[in-house]
Amino acid sequence: MKHFLLVPDSFKGSLSSSRICRLVEEEILSCIPDAQVVSIPVADGGEGSVEAFLSALGGQRVEAPCHGPYMEERTGFFGLLPDGTAVVEMAAAAGLPLTGGRLHPDQTTTFGVGELIASALEQGAGRLILALGGSATNDGGCGAAAALGVRFLDAAGQEFLPTGGTLHRLGRIDASGLLPRLRAIDVVAMCDIDNTLCGPAGASFVFGPQKGADAELAGLLDEGLLHFSQVVRRDLGVDVLDLPGGGAAGGMGAGAVALLGGRLQMGIETVLDAVQFDRLLQQADLVITGEGRLDRQSLRGKVVLGVARRAKAAGVPTAALVGSAAGDVDEAYSQGVSGIFPIHRQPMALKEAMAHSEEGLRLTTRNLLHFIAELELRSLKG
Amino acid sequence: MKHFLLVPDSFKGSLSSSRICRLVEEEILSCIPDAQVVSIPVADGGEGSVEAFLSALGGQRVEAPCHGPYMEERTGFFGLLPDGTAVVEMAAAAGLPLTGGRLHPDQTTTFGVGELIASALEQGAGRLILALGGSATNDGGCGAAAALGVRFLDAAGQEFLPTGGTLHRLGRIDASGLLPRLRAIDVVAMCDIDNTLCGPAGASFVFGPQKGADAELAGLLDEGLLHFSQVVRRDLGVDVLDLPGGGAAGGMGAGAVALLGGRLQMGIETVLDAVQFDRLLQQADLVITGEGRLDRQSLRGKVVLGVARRAKAAGVPTAALVGSAAGDVDEAYSQGVSGIFPIHRQPMALKEAMAHSEEGLRLTTRNLLHFIAELELRSLKG
Repeated sequence: MKHFLLVPDSFKGSLSSSRICRLVEEEILSCIPDAQVVSIPVADGGEGSVEAFLSALGGQRVEAPCHGPYMEERTGFFGLLPDGTAVVEMAAAAGLPLTGGRLHPDQTTTFGVGELIASALEQGAGRLILALGGSATNDGGCGAAAALGVRFLDAAGQEFLPTGGTLHRLGRIDASGLLPRLRAIDVVAMCDIDNTLCGPAGASFVFGPQKGADAELAGLLDEGLLHFSQVVRRDLGVDVLDLPGGGAAGGMGAGAVALLGGRLQMGIETVLDAVQFDRLLQQADLVITGEGRLDRQSLRGKVVLGVARRAKAAGVPTAALVGSAAGDVDEAYSQGVSGIFPIHRQPMALKEAMAHSEEGLRLTTRNLLHFIAELELRSLKG
Repeated sequence: MKHFLLVPDSFKGSLSSSRICRLVEEEILSCIPDAQVVSIPVADGGEGSVEAFLSALGGQRVEAPCHGPYMEERTGFFGLLPDGTAVVEMAAAAGLPLTGGRLHPDQTTTFGVGELIASALEQGAGRLILALGGSATNDGGCGAAAALGVRFLDAAGQEFLPTGGTLHRLGRIDASGLLPRLRAIDVVAMCDIDNTLCGPAGASFVFGPQKGADAELAGLLDEGLLHFSQVVRRDLGVDVLDLPGGGAAGGMGAGAVALLGGRLQMGIETVLDAVQFDRLLQQADLVITGEGRLDRQSLRGKVVLGVARRAKAAGVPTAALVGSAAGDVDEAYSQGVSGIFPIHRQPMALKEAMAHSEEGLRLTTRNLLHFIAELELRSLKG
């Protein structure tokens, strides 16, 4: 066994995906000095996507002026991949960390995200990956669309820039001015959740609180997005109300589809497509994936199963290194996970375990490689 | 992979070796219905040895009258294996549980152990395995030897039955009356420790406390065993003072060698010899062993390494299923352990973990089998 493909999710709260890649690669090379290791780090919920793509594929990081969540001037960035794809992460212009703790999801905008997209198009991007997630906004992506030529008008026909708190004033959407270049290219909006736009499982109620919305404000935000979806359906002929993932990033999932002509895709699928994972699999002897906690909930469209399904189709075994695994994860096996290996070797409290993640990951990787090598030895002799 | 050999140590405090064998076998057969599984349960420190040998090899359990640790009348037992080997566990006549909580290691005797040996010889045993461990005694095996014809005399030439508390009165040993049949056969004394007879790491100070000795009594017991070893050397020409394992079972390790003509052997080696493990290995695809806690201490001559060393020599991979594993167990790999698989899949406290051992063992076995099957599939295709 010589060719390894590493595609781990982060272990939330303890190890980033790229850190896991580095540690596992080190252990592989220390056990098998001539091993070929391809590392594909996966960003955690949008933020870090540009870096992850660049590290897997090369390309350049481009800085560009844009506006932040409160329309303050900022310098944002995006990535340009060697094949001409631009990667824009909305967190770069509308991310929660940019608010400095001022959490008012009724006032924040994704305008800067649109500016970054426009910059990328000016640089000649032939394809766009928009990484949703980590946003401080609840504007349904209206801000971004406005920056790209879409006009939002109130009941009196007056143009305005809707935010979460003013979406209910929306009277009409005029998308005729959308940048022609954007219409011409493939726009993929990456998201990791399948929440819909509105309702109890929608953007406002589920993700509003972490952006600063109390119950009352969440209700108002939810009404705003509902109204937005109705205007969208009437003016653009697109129904995004029940779209899985439409509720991602303060409704930007819906906006990316309705306003920017994009399509939603699970993040891991976008990443695997971008790195031509199926081609890499042809060379691979073992895929190593993993995540902090593997359970039935986590299996829904997340990294481990996304990776395992493709590996299975290619006949490549997949080992999942995990911080913990629930008992009822037989689905993982049927979907292509060959083995699940918890990294903690001793009973200990969760907090202590998280502090020992690096050591556990190293030892578990080493153990796995040793075991496989011994099995191979046996099969060579047998 | 179809042929499995199971030789697990117990997980102390949560799962017996035979229970582990049963659970693992069930999981193997549910994954691979036509698998061939050979289970070799290993007794935990002497007690249960007869049952373990009988379950692995067949044969019969024989009951016989004997005296208990306080010379009370009891019914003991031993095993007769198909090849004529008798298995006597000293716990059956001198075990700690037989005291009913009366813990006086200065007064207890191994006399009944000798009676069981005599009974086994009368039944025609052609070989003897004596399982040390779990004893309530500290008499250096003098009681057992007395029951088999050895005479112990005090300074005045008066015969007496030495116990831990009266060993210091020993004046002379006359072994001329030892049962001739015992002299004629191979006597193996199984033990799992390498403590010597006397001193701070000897029988009295290390194991005396759990038998009821306070510091003062432990000192007296230690002096008694020292005096015993001096008389043994003078009268029988055997030096057992520094014999590794001589301190097992209240000095019965030393007594088995000096008085009964036995040889000490690590328990796992005795078991593996008895079941003709090396021959079983010729058919095996995978050996599964394990123990509650794998660490550097536990590796010293215990089950896991004993099993792994032989499996390695035969080119068979060995998986160790463990309750927990320390970080610094690289020696395990170099000695033949192919992979170490902790059975707990989530961080949790030790007590909780022990309550979930069965589930963890089942899931871990299932996971391992699935992983191996997928690797095999790949190698068939590759």
